[in-house]
Amino acid sequence: MKIFFLSLLFLFSLSTAKKFAHPKFPSPINIQAESHKSTKTKLYETKYFTQILDHFNYHPQSYQTFQERYLINSKYWGGAEKNAPIFVYTGNEGDIEWFAQNTGFMFETAPQFKALLVFLEHRYYGKSIPFGGDKEIAYSNSTTLGYLSSTQALADYATLIIDLKKNLTAQDSPVIVFGGSYGGMLAAWFRLKYPHVALGALASSAPILGFQGIVSPYSFNNIITQDFKGESENCYKVIKESWKLIEETEQKHGGLELLKKSFNLCNSKAVGGWLQTAFVYTAMTDYPTPSNFLNPLPAYPIRQMCKAIDDPAAGNDTFAKLYGAANIYYNSSGTATCFNLSDHSDPHGLAEWTWQACTEMVLPTDGNDEKSIFPSSEWNFTDRATFCKDYLGVEPRPNWATTEFGGMDIMRVLSRFGSNMIFFNGLRDPWSGGGVLKSISESIVAVVAKQGAHHVDLRYSDKRDPKWLQDVRKREIHIIQKWIDQYHHDLSQDLLHS
Amino acid sequence: MKIFFLSLLFLFSLSTAKKFAHPKFPSPINIQAESHKSTKTKLYETKYFTQILDHFNYHPQSYQTFQERYLINSKYWGGAEKNAPIFVYTGNEGDIEWFAQNTGFMFETAPQFKALLVFLEHRYYGKSIPFGGDKEIAYSNSTTLGYLSSTQALADYATLIIDLKKNLTAQDSPVIVFGGSYGGMLAAWFRLKYPHVALGALASSAPILGFQGIVSPYSFNNIITQDFKGESENCYKVIKESWKLIEETEQKHGGLELLKKSFNLCNSKAVGGWLQTAFVYTAMTDYPTPSNFLNPLPAYPIRQMCKAIDDPAAGNDTFAKLYGAANIYYNSSGTATCFNLSDHSDPHGLAEWTWQACTEMVLPTDGNDEKSIFPSSEWNFTDRATFCKDYLGVEPRPNWATTEFGGMDIMRVLSRFGSNMIFFNGLRDPWSGGGVLKSISESIVAVVAKQGAHHVDLRYSDKRDPKWLQDVRKREIHIIQKWIDQYHHDLSQDLLHS
Repeated sequence: MKIFFLSLLFLFSLSTAKKFAHPKFPSPINIQAESHKSTKTKLYETKYFTQILDHFNYHPQSYQTFQERYLINSKYWGGAEKNAPIFVYTGNEGDIEWFAQNTGFMFETAPQFKALLVFLEHRYYGKSIPFGGDKEIAYSNSTTLGYLSSTQALADYATLIIDLKKNLTAQDSPVIVFGGSYGGMLAAWFRLKYPHVALGALASSAPILGFQGIVSPYSFNNIITQDFKGESENCYKVIKESWKLIEETEQKHGGLELLKKSFNLCNSKAVGGWLQTAFVYTAMTDYPTPSNFLNPLPAYPIRQMCKAIDDPAAGNDTFAKLYGAANIYYNSSGTATCFNLSDHSDPHGLAEWTWQACTEMVLPTDGNDEKSIFPSSEWNFTDRATFCKDYLGVEPRPNWATTEFGGMDIMRVLSRFGSNMIFFNGLRDPWSGGGVLKSISESIVAVVAKQGAHHVDLRYSDKRDPKWLQDVRKREIHIIQKWIDQYHHDLSQDLLHS
Repeated sequence: MKIFFLSLLFLFSLSTAKKFAHPKFPSPINIQAESHKSTKTKLYETKYFTQILDHFNYHPQSYQTFQERYLINSKYWGGAEKNAPIFVYTGNEGDIEWFAQNTGFMFETAPQFKALLVFLEHRYYGKSIPFGGDKEIAYSNSTTLGYLSSTQALADYATLIIDLKKNLTAQDSPVIVFGGSYGGMLAAWFRLKYPHVALGALASSAPILGFQGIVSPYSFNNIITQDFKGESENCYKVIKESWKLIEETEQKHGGLELLKKSFNLCNSKAVGGWLQTAFVYTAMTDYPTPSNFLNPLPAYPIRQMCKAIDDPAAGNDTFAKLYGAANIYYNSSGTATCFNLSDHSDPHGLAEWTWQACTEMVLPTDGNDEKSIFPSSEWNFTDRATFCKDYLGVEPRPNWATTEFGGMDIMRVLSRFGSNMIFFNGLRDPWSGGGVLKSISESIVAVVAKQGAHHVDLRYSDKRDPKWLQDVRKREIHIIQKWIDQYHHDLSQDLLHS
């Protein structure tokens, strides 16, 4: 069985029938931040901005507009007259409220920076839907989906920020952009492409080097492999050896029935993809404290999975071991009666990522070499292209992202160009293989946490946070403070001379 | 009478009837460089690249392709194995052969740099016409013209250069981009937006600050005013006072007939715009040696115009004085029998600039204050918008260029971001008001020539060139050499460590 891991937050399996299947499975998503929301005052106000559909062309249809949602919190803002900073989250492939609520770092640092907080929703996600907000139309075909692209989103952000600053008479307030995952890529690219709009960028777990031709297609799964192997060699071996057993069982008479029973499924289904999804997402969100980003999870969930697998009580029953591990990811509350693998709910509205993965975001993540915890497989662009053509009627442009945003020889290119960027990566995160792991210059800095997972730095702090995580956040704050201080110094010099 | 000076090389007059009129008038354009072409070996080979129509969207029609023309000269190239540089001209609003032939600087410096020379044609100009190369279709309406934009052109250039380097196995050859006028804006923007493709940019006479909200709308004509005033106060006065006389004459019975006779016109026509065009273009191309860029001109043509105006032989006959001046621009060969003001020939294929001026290139140049040599007038965006709507059915986006490319507070923004740019400006050039006239950082350098005109540095050298011009070119070469040396040093360090 072949699995495409296409997205940063979103996976989908490519069955032989090329039938689209959402990877996300039923489990109530209680955003961790909701508790913050309910106990404190409102986190933000919701606003809308009239955005142009097509920034780069001048067809009659380019001039169509849509409502782009953004969230704003001015509680901590020092105001325009003080040129107090504006912290902007460059939204990624989902509902912006979800990202805002999982980016506690911005809320927690705003008071000391006296920062205005703004969260921008990415076009075609959440409530920022072109064509009158009608998803039926916007998502219907490649003509309407055609305006969904990263360059258009970046131009949306530039347009909105400039307008917002003008309306607040805050033209001289420095803007710092923040983003995690694909949102982190956007933050980094935004600083590079729009330095006149953003003074600096914190790009967390942003695989800007995760493109074909730069990153190894084995990197993603080898990091997951290492995550499990590092926890327990036996755990790794059990999982690695299970795929053959699962496949054989599926093909045996009565095998699906056995799997249904072993994994407490509501229906008879192939379980390979379901298990792989659990392992991938758990690796991504292997946070040091209990969390609820993709699913509710305990602290260090890989450790918990391996505990279940290594549990002597399970004896030699591989399925029982895997079932125990799956429960960590899919059933932390212990309340699931059975697992419905056909549930294609998409609570965070990530579905349109498929379009992006089928156009410009050609991130090769599904190669598996000999040592991979998953079955061996080669990264194959043709498979992707065929799927995209069949499923969405669109042809990927595998070289466009690196043409537009660079990435090759990044050290050489950016060591003498650009400034004020932080690239955070946690090395447990499979996406870190495509991240910037070495500082490029004095002001383009890599912050690397060996124990970190997917944009863990951006999450709300927790009194149980380990010291390394506290230190990461302190360092990021220190660097951002330096940018802002320098900016205010430059500004005062300008005013002196004008 | 109100004149719109919309373009960098191209003006058009907006009559009250809003009728489109080309500004260029009959006069055989014998490209100066043609002599180089004929006497030496061929300047370049002509090639075509299959370019995608729309880089930023993914509609079915976005995937249409067209043939982009480029010119290439490998005579001087040191080759890929030596990582010898590639000099690329980022083509502007006209036939690329015309620009290549007027950019002798690249041909003359190629030998010492062992540079490959490449001249890229801008989409919708010359022979780089989308929709099967059919201008009838491509220019027919806003749906087909809609893909003509600067961002698309920049993306064309990135795509072509990356592909060309790959084909030459010259991935490590540094690319320096060159451009003059709008082509200079593109060169500067290209370095800013595609630092991974171009190591540096020489942006000559590039009014990247020439947009609404940054430059004064009076700047353009005040520089022209100063050009004439600096030559002779009387010359300035005669011209300044002539407009009223011309207007009065036009309205008088028999006035048009008188003007026809006075200015040796083939037909009876209003002459104001015709004269203004001559003064504007002569100011732009007030070169220190005889030239033939827009029209054949003697050295320091403004001086010659003022000589004609100040000529005691003309007595008090204002029209005779103006006619003498007009002859400098329109009839340097002295062979014109009469002037045909209705001739809308466009020998350099500049016509599509109107589209660009009606979409993103909103460069306010037609304000005239009290001291202007032209009649007083206010810059008025609404006039532009109305014309564009009526004439091309398109709405200008006056804030888009600065949103996309910046410009406001450029010193503050770029003093800590970016590198390796030269901004040349000649202060006799009316476009210099929108140029970068002060160095921004150690490696973003302004080269300013008080006596210089529109991208004079890029022209073929001439043994009669004044010392300041020789020095300008030497300085540019020195700076570019430094970029390339540093790059080769960085590259060798990389290879040492890899």
